[in-house]
Amino acid sequence: MLGEFELIQRYFMSPQEAHATAGIALGNGDDAALLVPQAGQQLVVSVDTSVVNVHFPHDAPAHAIGHRALAVALSDLAAMGASARWCVMSLTLNHQAFSARSAAEQWLAAYAEGFHALCQQHATALVGGDVTSGTLAIGVTVMGEVPAGKALTRSGAHPGDIVAVTGALGGGAGGLMRWRQGERELADPLLARYLLPQPRLAAGEALRDLATAALDISDGLLADLAHLRNASQVGCALDVDAIPLAEGLQEALGLDAARKAALSGGDDYELLVTLAPEHVETARQRLAKLGVSLTVIGRCTDTPGVTGVAPSDNEGWQHFSGVAP
Amino acid sequence: MLGEFELIQRYFMSPQEAHATAGIALGNGDDAALLVPQAGQQLVVSVDTSVVNVHFPHDAPAHAIGHRALAVALSDLAAMGASARWCVMSLTLNHQAFSARSAAEQWLAAYAEGFHALCQQHATALVGGDVTSGTLAIGVTVMGEVPAGKALTRSGAHPGDIVAVTGALGGGAGGLMRWRQGERELADPLLARYLLPQPRLAAGEALRDLATAALDISDGLLADLAHLRNASQVGCALDVDAIPLAEGLQEALGLDAARKAALSGGDDYELLVTLAPEHVETARQRLAKLGVSLTVIGRCTDTPGVTGVAPSDNEGWQHFSGVAP
Repeated sequence: MLGEFELIQRYFMSPQEAHATAGIALGNGDDAALLVPQAGQQLVVSVDTSVVNVHFPHDAPAHAIGHRALAVALSDLAAMGASARWCVMSLTLNHQAFSARSAAEQWLAAYAEGFHALCQQHATALVGGDVTSGTLAIGVTVMGEVPAGKALTRSGAHPGDIVAVTGALGGGAGGLMRWRQGERELADPLLARYLLPQPRLAAGEALRDLATAALDISDGLLADLAHLRNASQVGCALDVDAIPLAEGLQEALGLDAARKAALSGGDDYELLVTLAPEHVETARQRLAKLGVSLTVIGRCTDTPGVTGVAPSDNEGWQHFSGVAP
Repeated sequence: MLGEFELIQRYFMSPQEAHATAGIALGNGDDAALLVPQAGQQLVVSVDTSVVNVHFPHDAPAHAIGHRALAVALSDLAAMGASARWCVMSLTLNHQAFSARSAAEQWLAAYAEGFHALCQQHATALVGGDVTSGTLAIGVTVMGEVPAGKALTRSGAHPGDIVAVTGALGGGAGGLMRWRQGERELADPLLARYLLPQPRLAAGEALRDLATAALDISDGLLADLAHLRNASQVGCALDVDAIPLAEGLQEALGLDAARKAALSGGDDYELLVTLAPEHVETARQRLAKLGVSLTVIGRCTDTPGVTGVAPSDNEGWQHFSGVAP
């Protein structure tokens, strides 16, 4: 049986790539990490917990579980326009789910590979963590930096601002449906959107001096739009026909269900932003250089609420809703 | 049923006390918190996860669960000589364990009270969190600050340094035993040591320019001493008779078992430090002003290993050991 120290040592204390060691005075292996924030930057911090059978299927590929747990946390930094720097991870592992030590080790190696690969992609260093025993769950606290006063928040939208989204929506819900239908091939575009979401960090940074407000779409477009509307005290006229649908979504679900998935499905991890109309074209060009599309889907108004969508659609997804006592 | 947003809103986004809002540009309620590190300080970060029936009993008082989950994380900052600034919390809650909504709300209110009271005691602000559904577990990431280059680590001990501990040991293990025997009164000193540990933040700060190495005793004195010995490349001559035993421990267990609890029990959250002999008296006086004792229990040597303790005692507690597949 692997002990806690051995687990951490083997899979999560490997020397970090050189690119990611900037700003680390002391990494993994002491009581705490010592980090060196850059002068003039604010520290941007968020935590996200992924629980088996709530946020991902128990039999999802281990590398996808590692990737996804980090991706959903990094997505919050993207929404602030921050660059990612460091993260810490708490892994709760169900040893009893493994038939043998070798199975546990294989799972952990793949999990760590998925986690570390995404770290490397975004120059993020894993600087601490713990491993405990229990129901499989991963908590990731991400730390990023943003020039002081320049972060994007939910509260800066004004009536007249354009509402836009990066990428396409509904893939999270569509991919979950695919998984439930038995699809296991990560080359499937919908399944990839669900299990391997890509945090929009570069897009968030590119929009930092253009957008008036931003957040990431984790609960569903309408629910997250409601957060933005409430924080900014604006309404929204939504153009549902304009909402970009994830690749393969309409073919898989039909137009009505595809739209519903895009409006309320959640787990898309695209950015929802507002911008002054004169900045839309610049924003679009900047994101195009990053290979990310930006689509106008509506306009902020001074009338509370949302128009353009049926009241029955006007609800978000809450992870708890299936687990009432 | 309470939704995720409502839960977070009600219990974890209450306005922080004024004393704790320093360094917060944006607190709870956006995608991430925006924090303002102080110039000349390093950021000190650690995460600790507490899982039901692994780290605390499922029927422990909710306020103690909240207190303890934060305390064990803050203890890592104490071990670095850091002052605590901010924390984020991920709470995984088993809704099905509650008979009714009112029971869940009552539990949460008490949990939040225990968590917030310790935050306030150490001027630590809760700046983010998430609530998910699953087996009860709490992950706490703590962030503190320490003047650049001044942090205490595990690796600075030299042969000839004195080995000392704050407070008294064995109370964590003794308190767990009490709980198993049916004791439920938190006035019981041993039970209080187990369920309501006090992170030694003030002591850690007071020792910052005196100690050569430090860590907190979470895995047990011998196991944590081994971490220090390995990191500092020293040996240790331990004076087992000198180890201070927690109040009531010898009466409860007899001397032999009490010593074993102090050596290997874990969960004491006292500081284990090394100091040059000429600094011991100053350190003792500083801690005395804080109401914390400092007891010399040994000396660092240039011979690897530990003397003064039977080989059979020379092992630490690993949380995993009871959960082999």
